[in-house]
This record gives sequence, structure tokens and C-alpha cells, in this order.
Amino acid sequence: MKTRPLSLVSAFALAICVVPAWAADPLPSWNDTATKKAIITFVESVTTKGSPDFVPPAERIATFDNDGTLWSEKPVYFQLIFAIDRVKALAPQHPEWKDQEPFASLLKGDLEAALAGGEKAVAEIVMATHAGMTTEEFEKMGKEWIATARHPQTKRLYTEMVYQPMLEFLAYLRANGFKTFIVSGGGIEFMRPWTEAVYGIPPEQVVGSSIKTRFEMRDDGPVLVRLPEMNFVDDKEGKPIGIHSHIGRRPIAAFGNSDGDLQMLKWTAAGSGPRFCLLVHHTDAQRE
Amino acid sequence: MKTRPLSLVSAFALAICVVPAWAADPLPSWNDTATKKAIITFVESVTTKGSPDFVPPAERIATFDNDGTLWSEKPVYFQLIFAIDRVKALAPQHPEWKDQEPFASLLKGDLEAALAGGEKAVAEIVMATHAGMTTEEFEKMGKEWIATARHPQTKRLYTEMVYQPMLEFLAYLRANGFKTFIVSGGGIEFMRPWTEAVYGIPPEQVVGSSIKTRFEMRDDGPVLVRLPEMNFVDDKEGKPIGIHSHIGRRPIAAFGNSDGDLQMLKWTAAGSGPRFCLLVHHTDAQRE
Repeated sequence: MKTRPLSLVSAFALAICVVPAWAADPLPSWNDTATKKAIITFVESVTTKGSPDFVPPAERIATFDNDGTLWSEKPVYFQLIFAIDRVKALAPQHPEWKDQEPFASLLKGDLEAALAGGEKAVAEIVMATHAGMTTEEFEKMGKEWIATARHPQTKRLYTEMVYQPMLEFLAYLRANGFKTFIVSGGGIEFMRPWTEAVYGIPPEQVVGSSIKTRFEMRDDGPVLVRLPEMNFVDDKEGKPIGIHSHIGRRPIAAFGNSDGDLQMLKWTAAGSGPRFCLLVHHTDAQRE
Repeated sequence: MKTRPLSLVSAFALAICVVPAWAADPLPSWNDTATKKAIITFVESVTTKGSPDFVPPAERIATFDNDGTLWSEKPVYFQLIFAIDRVKALAPQHPEWKDQEPFASLLKGDLEAALAGGEKAVAEIVMATHAGMTTEEFEKMGKEWIATARHPQTKRLYTEMVYQPMLEFLAYLRANGFKTFIVSGGGIEFMRPWTEAVYGIPPEQVVGSSIKTRFEMRDDGPVLVRLPEMNFVDDKEGKPIGIHSHIGRRPIAAFGNSDGDLQMLKWTAAGSGPRFCLLVHHTDAQRE
């Protein structure tokens, strides 16, 4: 059989279809480094039909840590600032907090003293501020805070403290058929109300830490009540467990910035076929 | 400003775009009942731009029970048959089971006696057959079973014991921009290996019951080991909790067949805007 040469019209149609994908740099904020090249080479190798490394779209799962990877975590985790703001808002209803740690120190603005109690102190702050309301009430609180609270140094909204190169990277992966997930030690219900608008990641693609909830039928309908009891810690060994539980497939690419992400990266790298794992180290405080 | 009349060409282009969607009955196996009409009216009302009930695609979440809703659950839950087959396969390594309930009765083929021990007996069967291996080993077992095991009465593969009207319904919803999820009391890892091929529902859209897992670094790489401890029961009050945990949005449509689905239906119906909830009652044993 002779192959039929493309007509001029078909060739032109092909050209106008193909050109836009390559015409512009998909990662304009990235410096031209070996890392950038490696990313683009990886994406091309798994998306090119006929390539030995081709991965079907359904299996193009990429997972991202949030704190320090997609948005800043300085001076402290932003969710901790949310919790502190909630402690201040709730203080009038808790006069006993004036003499009770870690709340007493928090209310005096002494974060270091408040956190001196270690994990126990953090758990007390989390449960006092994140439990005891319905999931809808908590979502409303989170939404109001994220829409109005300002970073202590930059005075920007926290949703403006995200990394532009990572936004480009998320969009680039999605344009190439990847499904992008957040896998964060942060609270799943703290993140979900804003990740779609800020990162383009919908709630069902957010994996995070959680407290238990209880289903209750009330006079005005069913609710889920947030209980002061941990359900799942999505950090370190928890990240592969959270990925397995929520996604049910092993990612082919994973991105983190800390020790808490190592197990996720190892779990990702251990799969068969091409894998891409990256520890992000944000150093460009100026452009941030 | 005058409105510009559509040119003949545009009108024709519009016609050939629109016709295929309505030309054929999207639910050919469904009898022409009020239920079928209500479904189509609902789907049209939430997908028609400008309709007061319009729902953006991202929020078109539909959840389906599995056992008795998408596939048969007669004579017993198919996952229980899988567990019994596993008990038989493992029996040579467990000579003590000959004198130990519920295994002794199971091995004699007396299911009723085996289940006389109630929930405790079921838990023992589940843990003996579903725990103690890595997640990859369990997935392999499940895949082999589902590809070869036959229904005791029909002698068909279990994946052929699915309801044709529900397959059409899933496809119809997806063609209208819905994201379809399974929310089942069955094991999440039992379902995930085959739901995509059978129902078009990918692993990350399957919510189910689960046992705990532990992350372990072994010489040949990281694994998740399945532990003999319940993690989550995705039934009754668990269904809204599972939906909230995995999906993070309230469904606008939910489908079940039993008391175990009532809380999911109530949770779905309690959202604002248009909702569709259906208790499926399969009665057509002949066509099944």
C-alpha cells in the first residue's frame, strides 16, 4: 500500500493545530535549568503516543504537597495563623483561657511559649478551633478567613502567597492530561473551600489531615458534626496511605519540599515505568 | 442593537451539533415510566444554561451504591463469596480452621451456620482473608478472582451480573457532565481494580469500607501492609461521612437500594437547589 501524501490543506491544518502547544514556553517563570528541561522531557515522554514511556491519561496522576510547595509556609503554617485568629475570636466565650496554656500565651501574642507544649499544645489549639461545629459552619469560617486575613509581613491575602512557577506547572500538567492532586499535612477541610479557585484543584482532588465527624439528624436536616478527635494525619508515612485511600492509584509524579514528603516521593518512585519526583526548594524570596 | 439572524450555514451547523444528543433514547432499557421521565427532566433542568436549576459541571456529583444498585447482591454479597473462596484457598495453611468457627462451617459449605456468629463472625472472615498482605498482593488476588470466579446460579462472571439500565444511566449522566462516584459498604480495594472497566468509574471515584494499612520500607521498596483492623465502615451514617471525606462536596443526585443508603439520600436531598434521589428496586429477574 502506498502512503498518501498529506495535501497542503491537511498539512496546514495540522500545523495550526500543533503550533500553539509548542509556540509559547509553558513555564515562563522558570529559569532555564536542568530541572525545567527534565520536567518537559518527562511530560513529553509520557504523553507522546508510541513513546516507550507513554502513560494513558487516566494514569497521569500528579501529587503536590501544599505548605512550602504550592504556597508559602513562612513565618509559620498559615493554618496555624487561622487557628490563632480563631482562638482570639473565641476568647470572649472562654474566660478560662486567660490562665490556661497554650491559650494564655497565644492570647498574649507569645507563639513560642504557646507551642512550647509541643504536639499536645498544637492538638489542643486545633481541637478548640476546628471541632465542635458542623462541617458547613467550619467551611463558612474558613472561607471568611481566607477571603479577608492578611499575611503578617506582606499584608497580602494568603491566597496571593502562592508560587507562580507552581501555578504554571499545575496548568502545564493539566494541559497534558494529568490529574493534579494536593496531598498535604494541612487540614483537608481547611484547604478544600479555596483550592479550586486558587490552584484549579477541585475538592475531590484534595487529600489532607482530618478530624472525625458524626452524622446527626437535626430538626432542620442532617448535619456532620466535627469531633475533637483526630481521624487521619496526612504526613510522612501518612501520605502514601492517604494517596492509596483517596486516589487508589500510584502517582507517576510527586512534588514536595520537606521530610514530611519523603515517603510520598519514595512511594511514587517505586512504581514501574517513568516517574518524576521533585523536592522543591523555594529560594527566590524577592520574586515571591 | 438589532439581533443578527443566524445564517443558514450556522443554523445547519447548530442542528447537526444538537441532533445527535436527542436523536436516540439515552436510556433504551428503561421502561417509559414516570421515573424515567423524572430523571430526564432533572438532567435537562440542571444542564440547560439559563435554566433556574442550572448546576455548573464541577458540582454535578452523582453517587451510587454498588451492591443491589449497580450489580446484583443475590444470593449473598459477592464480596462474601470472594472471602469464602479465599478461606478455601488458604485452608491448607490453616489446619486449625477445621475445628474453629466460623471457618469450620464455611469449609463444610454451611454458610448459614458460619454467619450465625453475626458481625463477629463476618469480621473474622474478612480479616483472615483481606488482611496480612500488601495492597499490591491483595489487588492481584481480587483481579484474578473477578476475572475467573462464576456466579453460583447463572455461572456468569460477577462483572456480567451488573444492571444494564444502570450502565446506561451512568453513561447518560457522564455524557451530561456529571462525575459519577460509587459509595458502597463494600471494600474500597475490592471494587477499585474493576470499576473502571465495568462501570467507567475510575479508582479515585470509588468510596467504600476499608481496613487500616501501614507504610513499610522493605529491601525491595516501600509497601502498604493491610492490617486486621477496621478503618472505616461506609454504610448508613458512614455514607455521608465517606462522601464528605472523599468528595468534599454534596452530591446533587444519589442512588441506592436499601436502608444502608437512606442517610446518603437524606444528606443529598438536604442540599440547596435541585436534587434527585432514587431507591432502586430491581424486580426484573428475567432480564437480569
